[in-house]
Amino acid sequence: MEKIAVIGGGSWATALVKILSENKASVNWWLRNANDVEHLQKYHHNPRYISGVNFNLNYVKPTTHLAECLQEVRWVILAVPAAFIQSALENLPADAFAGKILVSAVKGMIPHQNILITDYLENTFGVPASHQCIIAGPCHAEEVALEKQSYLTIGSHDLDHAEQFCALLRNRYVKASPLDDLDGIEYAAVMKNIIALACGIAHGLGYGDNFQAVMVSNAMQEIDRFLHAVMPVNRDLNGSAYLGDLLVTAYSQFSRNRTFGNMIGRGYTVKSAQFEMNMVAEGYYAVESIYALNKKLRVAMPITDAVHRILYEKVAPAVELQILKEKFS
Amino acid sequence: MEKIAVIGGGSWATALVKILSENKASVNWWLRNANDVEHLQKYHHNPRYISGVNFNLNYVKPTTHLAECLQEVRWVILAVPAAFIQSALENLPADAFAGKILVSAVKGMIPHQNILITDYLENTFGVPASHQCIIAGPCHAEEVALEKQSYLTIGSHDLDHAEQFCALLRNRYVKASPLDDLDGIEYAAVMKNIIALACGIAHGLGYGDNFQAVMVSNAMQEIDRFLHAVMPVNRDLNGSAYLGDLLVTAYSQFSRNRTFGNMIGRGYTVKSAQFEMNMVAEGYYAVESIYALNKKLRVAMPITDAVHRILYEKVAPAVELQILKEKFS
Repeated sequence: MEKIAVIGGGSWATALVKILSENKASVNWWLRNANDVEHLQKYHHNPRYISGVNFNLNYVKPTTHLAECLQEVRWVILAVPAAFIQSALENLPADAFAGKILVSAVKGMIPHQNILITDYLENTFGVPASHQCIIAGPCHAEEVALEKQSYLTIGSHDLDHAEQFCALLRNRYVKASPLDDLDGIEYAAVMKNIIALACGIAHGLGYGDNFQAVMVSNAMQEIDRFLHAVMPVNRDLNGSAYLGDLLVTAYSQFSRNRTFGNMIGRGYTVKSAQFEMNMVAEGYYAVESIYALNKKLRVAMPITDAVHRILYEKVAPAVELQILKEKFS
Repeated sequence: MEKIAVIGGGSWATALVKILSENKASVNWWLRNANDVEHLQKYHHNPRYISGVNFNLNYVKPTTHLAECLQEVRWVILAVPAAFIQSALENLPADAFAGKILVSAVKGMIPHQNILITDYLENTFGVPASHQCIIAGPCHAEEVALEKQSYLTIGSHDLDHAEQFCALLRNRYVKASPLDDLDGIEYAAVMKNIIALACGIAHGLGYGDNFQAVMVSNAMQEIDRFLHAVMPVNRDLNGSAYLGDLLVTAYSQFSRNRTFGNMIGRGYTVKSAQFEMNMVAEGYYAVESIYALNKKLRVAMPITDAVHRILYEKVAPAVELQILKEKFS
């Protein structure tokens, strides 16, 4: 029986615990909140996210003790927002992940440091790239909960590890494929949240479907340029892990980044939108990191620049969209 | 003053007449139906499509006489469904378009003959490729009527002609760009209707957003393979004329092909869906033509094959989607 630690109590963590435990892996599940752990132990449901899912406690051990959660596991899945990674892991010793394979389900970068999660894990805990994977793919947790057909891509420099992890995920409604473009997938996952946010802003300002289609086309060109600058390997951006992931985020009713952007487009301030949503959209941090990184790379990134100016320099959304509109073709 | 003939009375034709006449081109507008022409002359609205649009009859001359419509015009825009092109043009002499530039706004192929509209016009009326353009781009007529920001791409072997036509279209809410990939754009426009139909079928069967994103990703790979086989030039499929056009059709509430597919997925027969919609979705014919063409090319086209079997070989949609599901990654 494979032993896996899942770190995080949000909707994506909850969906992954469902998938893995239904495949009879033994899952140690770390949640920050003691009440949630208690609720899970008593009622077998996560009270806060996709709460319809029932967990079999023969396979799932919820806990608030991180060190305990990591004991004897081979795989560690990180599924907390990028902004909380450091505080979640701060009390762990430097060798906490020695010999384990880390799988990042995080779609963001370490704020202010502007580094990928996989780079942070290598720098801080000495986890080599060969022992890291990333989960990507167009996969809303809400649809996993409904057991709708979904596809995941597992990126790793070590395709054996990627394939082994795919095998833990595959079931009746989940297909998983390995891919060796670890960095490309990770950056694309970060950028898609910026684009979804931009789509939301446009929608909030009254732009329609025609414009959204053009925004996403131009976004794919922007992602292509950036990935080529940051990690120039041969990749098919039409793959599910790139285009698919962007589409599900930019078009879906479940996308938090799109919802956040929509509020900004309708005139909410960043603070009031965050307050109203009771959460921070990943794209808010992502745009800061990608914008900072691009100061050196100097790739043409009109959408990223526009979102950055709207969220961090208080330029009016209508003004930025007017500029974007002229740049698109 | 540029003189333009627009052939067709549907929603896209109506939107184009709005754009061109508001730019003060002189538009001879051919509609098949005498009642519609009379209504336009009396009330300045097309009674059947995007009927909120008011036309200035100083610039717009509605008529049912095709030969009259073509007199003294430099540009002829074809905007009737592909299946009706031949009957619409059947009484014209072979030199009817001599010296004129033809612009196809048709998103389909000549049924059964399986040739592109531009090829048909060259074969039948001797219009050279240099005197042909195609209008593409993610542009729902309904959003043009609402004056939502839209983007068009004009494809031609003659970039001067393409640019001249772009200039006739550009306005406050329409941006237009020339592109030299006439055939690639035309094939992509045909194929997008097949994909939208497939997306509708999947939706009708209960597949969700995750699956649709994977379908569109796999569709882009399918379009890439086909275009490479049929016309191998260097093109960026992330352009608005390719990806954008597919997205607006596959995701939009206005897409007739998606609606038709949705009914098929929910169990309607082809006949009853056509009867209920009171029209034939372009994708229905498109899939027959692309499928036939591909018998020679032998490109891997799982989505086209599946839609063909569902619509023409009466295979159950659920069965075909099950097969597709396994092929996608």
